[in-house]
Parts: sequence; C-alpha cells; structure tokens
Amino acid sequence: MKLYDYYRSSASYRVRIALNLKGLPYEQVAVNLREGQQYQQVYLQDHPQGLVPALQVEGVEQITQSLAILEWLEETYPAPPLLPADSWRRAQVRSLMLQVAADIHPLNNLRVLQYLTGPLACSQATKEQWIHHWIQVGFSALEKHFEKQQLAIGPFCDGADVTLADVCLIPQVYNALRFSVPMHPYPHIIAIYEHCLTLPAFDAAAPEHQPDAL
Amino acid sequence: MKLYDYYRSSASYRVRIALNLKGLPYEQVAVNLREGQQYQQVYLQDHPQGLVPALQVEGVEQITQSLAILEWLEETYPAPPLLPADSWRRAQVRSLMLQVAADIHPLNNLRVLQYLTGPLACSQATKEQWIHHWIQVGFSALEKHFEKQQLAIGPFCDGADVTLADVCLIPQVYNALRFSVPMHPYPHIIAIYEHCLTLPAFDAAAPEHQPDAL
Repeated sequence: MKLYDYYRSSASYRVRIALNLKGLPYEQVAVNLREGQQYQQVYLQDHPQGLVPALQVEGVEQITQSLAILEWLEETYPAPPLLPADSWRRAQVRSLMLQVAADIHPLNNLRVLQYLTGPLACSQATKEQWIHHWIQVGFSALEKHFEKQQLAIGPFCDGADVTLADVCLIPQVYNALRFSVPMHPYPHIIAIYEHCLTLPAFDAAAPEHQPDAL
Repeated sequence: MKLYDYYRSSASYRVRIALNLKGLPYEQVAVNLREGQQYQQVYLQDHPQGLVPALQVEGVEQITQSLAILEWLEETYPAPPLLPADSWRRAQVRSLMLQVAADIHPLNNLRVLQYLTGPLACSQATKEQWIHHWIQVGFSALEKHFEKQQLAIGPFCDGADVTLADVCLIPQVYNALRFSVPMHPYPHIIAIYEHCLTLPAFDAAAPEHQPDAL
C-alpha cells in the first residue's frame, strides 16, 4: 500500500497510526503541503480535493478522506479490531472520531488558516486565537464526555481497548500542544494522550518521525 | 426514536432523510439554534457539544454526530441498504460523505459564521464570500469526481442506488441554493439533487416541511 501524506497533516497522522496498529507495511509518498504540491496537476488528477491523505492499494483506485480510509482498513484487516464489537459502543466511538475530525480539525486546517491571513487579512494573533478557540470548544465537550464516562475504567477513549477514537484524538492533541493551547483544563484528554504515546504504533506515526519531517 | 433537531440544520436534515429512506418512525424535538436552546443546561447535560442532531433510542444512551447516527442506523436497520455491499465502493461513498460533512459543512456552520461576524468583525459581504468559497471549493472537487465516474450510469452519487453520499450531499446543495451560490458549474451535482428531490423520503425531510420551520 502507498500512502500519500505529509508529516504534519493531522489526517495523515491518523492513518499512519491505524496502519501501524494493524501491523500493515506501507510506502509513504510525501506531498509537501507548504510548497503546494497538493495543487500540482499530477496530484490533482487522482485527488480532485487536493488534500492528503490518500491510500493507494494495488489494483484498485485510491481512497481519500482519512475516516473513509480508517473504516476501509477496519473492514479489510479486522485484526486487531479498532472499533468495539457492540454496535452502540461503535456509535459512541464514531461520535468521538467525528467530534475531532469534523468539528475541530477542518476549522484549523492549513487552507483555512491561509484564508484567514489571506482574504480576511487576520493578524497572526487573531489566527492563533481562532486555532485555540475551536480546539478549546471541542476539547471542553470531549473532556465532559470522558468525565461522565468515568474514564478510570480504562486508559483509552473507550475504556480498556484502543479504538479509532484514540487514532483521531492523539493527532489533535499533538496540534494543540504545537499551538501552545493550555491543556490543564483537560486532564482526561492528556491522560489518554500520554498513555497512547507509550505504544510504538503511535510513537512511530508522530510527525517528527516521518521521512519528510523538517 | 426521538430526534433532537432543527429544521435548517444540515446535519439534522441528513438524519431525517436516512430515517425516512429506512421507513423508521421518529419523534422530533426541535432545538432552536437561533435562540441558543442548544446551550441551555437541560440540553448540554446530555449533549456537551451543544449541537444537533442527537438520536435517542429507548433504553440506551444518545448518539450525537450525524455520521455516527447514519452508520448506526445502517448497522441496526440494514434494509434498505444505504451503503454498497462492496467494501471498496463503500469507501468511495464514505469519502463523498466526508467531503461534504468534514470539509464543507463545518466551515459554514452557524457557530463559525457567528465567530466571523462576532470576534472577527467580518461584514455581511465577507461572510457570504466565505460561505461561497468553501462550498465552491468542495463542489468543484465533487463535480470532477462525478465527471470522472461518468455519472450517466446512474442518477445517484454512487450510480443506480441511493446511498449515504446522497443523504449528505442533498442538504449541502440546499444550503448552497439558500446562500445563492451559482450552481451552473456543477451540472452533475444539480442532476443528482433534482433526482433525489423526486423521492418522498428526501422531500419530507426538507427544512420547509419540518414542524419548527418558520
């Protein structure tokens, strides 16, 4: 399998973690978002959105959108499972995934930040407030959820087992730390983050360990 | 089942379509987003994100996040199917869902527009440019995808059968029309939209047919 990715892309980071957790080897093709390689014709031809990640599997078309890739991996390589067996709990895990992947991350994506400082002429400080705001809104809701679930029962988002919710949360915490969001209001989130980082699958997927990291 | 929703919420509209397609009866509980009912304590208690939709099923906790609700409905009430049987095509449908639900819709959500005109002090015109920009970026990529897939083979996003991709796309087209986004560059999208609206399940889910429509 070939993964089109970028070391700092939070959505690519998710897919790298899942591939590692499932023990699947993959070849990385770096797409430098800062240099705009995602908008070059050769990339756009197969990825009209001009976004990473994309997964190419021999003999079949590519899949784009990290959550679609995660679901495909889960269906195709079910061991070890990254979604709970129970349908209701699966829904809770997917809800956590989407709280990160639909309601925090897209607002702080590179192209959105470029729109803020470009057409909207926002200052650097205003841009940083924007980043902090959406992470804080999202993390506050997640923290309340984890409090309610009495996280003490397990070190991961869904309890004793690692799931796709952790796969989505950890890259978002990484981003929050990168942008110096104060994390003390989110003790449950930080506990999950620190626990996940002890697993080699998460550590190997971290941006600084990628071949294209600067 | 009880659906917490708001007539104009695009994410609620998705869930209403899916419930109708599966022939599932549900009770609607209107949460007036314009009046801020989603931030009242009684609502926040069960929905820390303060967003709609949420689905309550007797005897179990609630599910939030429209895409998590759609996947749960698909697993729990598999007939008629709204995802293709083939895993690779399922991935393509999920990618289309996410192109709308993660990369267009969250940027034009009420709370984001309120941040633009509030803290960022954007004018009404700048806000409308923002709305148009993200819809146009997203629809251009989708249109290229449909062109490539030779949509002629079927009237829906994935061909001959209605899927969750249509369930996500139609509310986004509704929004685009509401904000007067010129649709002539997207003939495939418009063709899918017009076809879907001929189905009673889509029509009954439209904002103007909801009990809380103003």
